[in-house]
Amino acid sequence: MQSAQVRLKRRPVGMPSPDDFEVATVDVPEPGAGEVQVVNLCMSVDPYMRGRMVDRKSYVPPFQVGEALTGGAIGRVVASVHPEYREGDIVESHFGWRQAFTAPAGQLTRLGELAAPPSAYLGVLGMPGMTAYVGLLGAASLKDGETVFVSGAAGAVGSVAGQIARLKGCPVVGSAGSAGKVAWLTEELGFQHAFDYHDGNLLGHLRDGAPGGLDVYFDNVGGAHLEAALFHMRPFGRIALCGAISQYNATEPVPGPSNLVMAIGLGLTLRGFIVSHFDHLKDDFRRDMTAWVKAGEIRWQETVYDGIEHAPDAFIGLFTGANVGKMIVRLAD
Amino acid sequence: MQSAQVRLKRRPVGMPSPDDFEVATVDVPEPGAGEVQVVNLCMSVDPYMRGRMVDRKSYVPPFQVGEALTGGAIGRVVASVHPEYREGDIVESHFGWRQAFTAPAGQLTRLGELAAPPSAYLGVLGMPGMTAYVGLLGAASLKDGETVFVSGAAGAVGSVAGQIARLKGCPVVGSAGSAGKVAWLTEELGFQHAFDYHDGNLLGHLRDGAPGGLDVYFDNVGGAHLEAALFHMRPFGRIALCGAISQYNATEPVPGPSNLVMAIGLGLTLRGFIVSHFDHLKDDFRRDMTAWVKAGEIRWQETVYDGIEHAPDAFIGLFTGANVGKMIVRLAD
Repeated sequence: MQSAQVRLKRRPVGMPSPDDFEVATVDVPEPGAGEVQVVNLCMSVDPYMRGRMVDRKSYVPPFQVGEALTGGAIGRVVASVHPEYREGDIVESHFGWRQAFTAPAGQLTRLGELAAPPSAYLGVLGMPGMTAYVGLLGAASLKDGETVFVSGAAGAVGSVAGQIARLKGCPVVGSAGSAGKVAWLTEELGFQHAFDYHDGNLLGHLRDGAPGGLDVYFDNVGGAHLEAALFHMRPFGRIALCGAISQYNATEPVPGPSNLVMAIGLGLTLRGFIVSHFDHLKDDFRRDMTAWVKAGEIRWQETVYDGIEHAPDAFIGLFTGANVGKMIVRLAD
Repeated sequence: MQSAQVRLKRRPVGMPSPDDFEVATVDVPEPGAGEVQVVNLCMSVDPYMRGRMVDRKSYVPPFQVGEALTGGAIGRVVASVHPEYREGDIVESHFGWRQAFTAPAGQLTRLGELAAPPSAYLGVLGMPGMTAYVGLLGAASLKDGETVFVSGAAGAVGSVAGQIARLKGCPVVGSAGSAGKVAWLTEELGFQHAFDYHDGNLLGHLRDGAPGGLDVYFDNVGGAHLEAALFHMRPFGRIALCGAISQYNATEPVPGPSNLVMAIGLGLTLRGFIVSHFDHLKDDFRRDMTAWVKAGEIRWQETVYDGIEHAPDAFIGLFTGANVGKMIVRLAD
C-alpha cells in the first residue's frame, strides 16, 4: 500500500504559504506483531500547529523540515496483527497529514460505538471540544450563571465553549470574523450577543453585549481582544488563555495588553492552559459531551476540504477565517 | 489643638512634584461622644497612593483635589470619649498625612502590646507585610522549596516577601535599584541571589540566579521585569501581580509583556490582588509575622523623613528609589 503525506518543506515566515509544504508518496509497511495498518478517513488542521512549525522550544517539539507533519486523524483499520484490533475498527491517532499508516496499537485509540460521524471526533467530541470544556470548567472555574465572553467564537473551540457556557446558564457574548458567523452564533448556538470584530470597536461591543461586565473571558485570539476584555472584567473575573491566533504569524514580538495592571485592583486571574494539562477531566468530558451531542444540545459545523493535497490550504485557511466551526480535511470515505 | 495636613493641590502628571501638594493647618475638634482624639506618631507613604491621585475609576475612590490625603498612620490617643480607649493607647488608622485628628473609635484599631516599635505596624507588621504574606501564600499559592523571584525586593513589600519565601525553604532571587540594596538582600535578608536591574540584563540575571527556572514570581514592578520573568517561568508557575511601579507615572499606555502567550503552553497563572482581597488571612498573618518578628527571623529597614512638611518628598522618593525598606514619615515622638 502507498500513502501520500504532507511534509514541511521549509519553515513559514509570517502567514504560511502553500510553498511551505510538499506532498510525497511513501510505501506503508505491512503491520508486524502488535501493529495495525490504518487508512485515514479525515484529518484535523488546528491553529496550534503553526507554533510547531517554528524552530523554538515550546510545549511540543517543533516539526522537522522534510518530515511528514502530524496531527489528529480518524481512520479505519485495514489490517491488524494485534488481538484487540480488527479490520473495520474506527480509531483516533496522531498520524494525520497522511492517507494511511502502520503503527503500534498502543499509539491508537479505538472509538467504539460512535455518537456522531467520525469527523466529530476531531471537533466537538475530540481535542477542540475537550479544550473548550476544560478551559471553561477547569482553567476559568466557570460558575453557573456567570457572564462569559468567547473570542474566535465561530471556531472549533470557541463555538463549543460558548455552548457549554450556555448549558451552564451563562449569558454568552462571542466575537467572530463575518456577518454569517455572527448570525450562526446568535441564531443557532444560543449566544446572547455576537459581533464582527473587524470594525475595531471591541470594547463597545462588549459593553453592548454584557452591560454588567464579564466574569469569564475565554481567549482564543489575544492582542486587542484580550485588552478589550480586561477593560470590561468584573471583580475576581477569570481569563482562560487558550490561544492567540492574532499573533501566530507575527514576525516581530507583539506587545501585550497595556492594561494588565487592571488585574491587580480587580483581583483577576489569567490562566494559560493546553488541553493535556487537564487530562484528569477526560472521562468527565466524554460523558458530558456525548450526552449533550446525543440530546442535540450542542451543535457544530464543519468546513471540509477534500483530499490530502488540499490539507495545506485548509491549514492556511484557519488564519484567514475560511472555516466556520471545525476545519476538516476528508481523505477517504 | 491644631494640626498640619497635606492636601492634594492638583493632580500629578507623570512623576509627582512637590508643587502638587500643599500643607494647611486646621483645628482639630474636641472629641464628642464615641470619639477619640489622636496625635500621629508616624505615617506611611505607599506606591498605591499614586493611583488614587488620578481621577479614574479604580478599586479605591480617587483623592479629591483640595482635600487632605489619607493613608496608614500610627498615633497615640490624647483624649477619649469612648469607654474602650484611654489616653496613651497606640492606634492604627487611615488618617495619615496629618499631625492629629479626631475620629469615631470605630475607625481606629488599637494595637495592644507591641511586638516592635510603632512604625513597624506601617511596614512588616502592617499592610505591606500582609501584602507580602497573602501575595505569596494566597495569590501565588507558594509551596515549600519552590524557586521564587521578587522584584522591587528592597522595598517594604518585596523585602518581606523574599524573607517569607526563605522561611518556607525557597531559594529567592531579588531585583533592586542599587548596589547597596542588593548587598542588603543577600547579606542580611538571606536572598540566594540579587541584582541591580539598571543594566537591563534582567533575563541574564534570572538565569544566573535561578538556573532551573522560576516557580513563583512576586511582581511589584511590571513592564520589563514581568516580561523577563515570563521567559524564565517553569511549567505551572504562578505570578502574583502586586504592583507595577515602573508604570505608575506613565502618561501614555505602556505595552504589556510581548510573551504573555508563553502562559498557554506552560500552564502559567497570573493573579492580580490587593491586600484586602485576602482579609480572611489577617489572623494567620498577625500570628505568623508576630512570631517571626519576635524570633528575629524577619528583618526590616526603614527610610525615615522627619516632619509632615516632608511627606510629599517621601512619597516622591518611592519612585526614585530613595527608600530602602519601608518609607516612613515621622510626625511626633
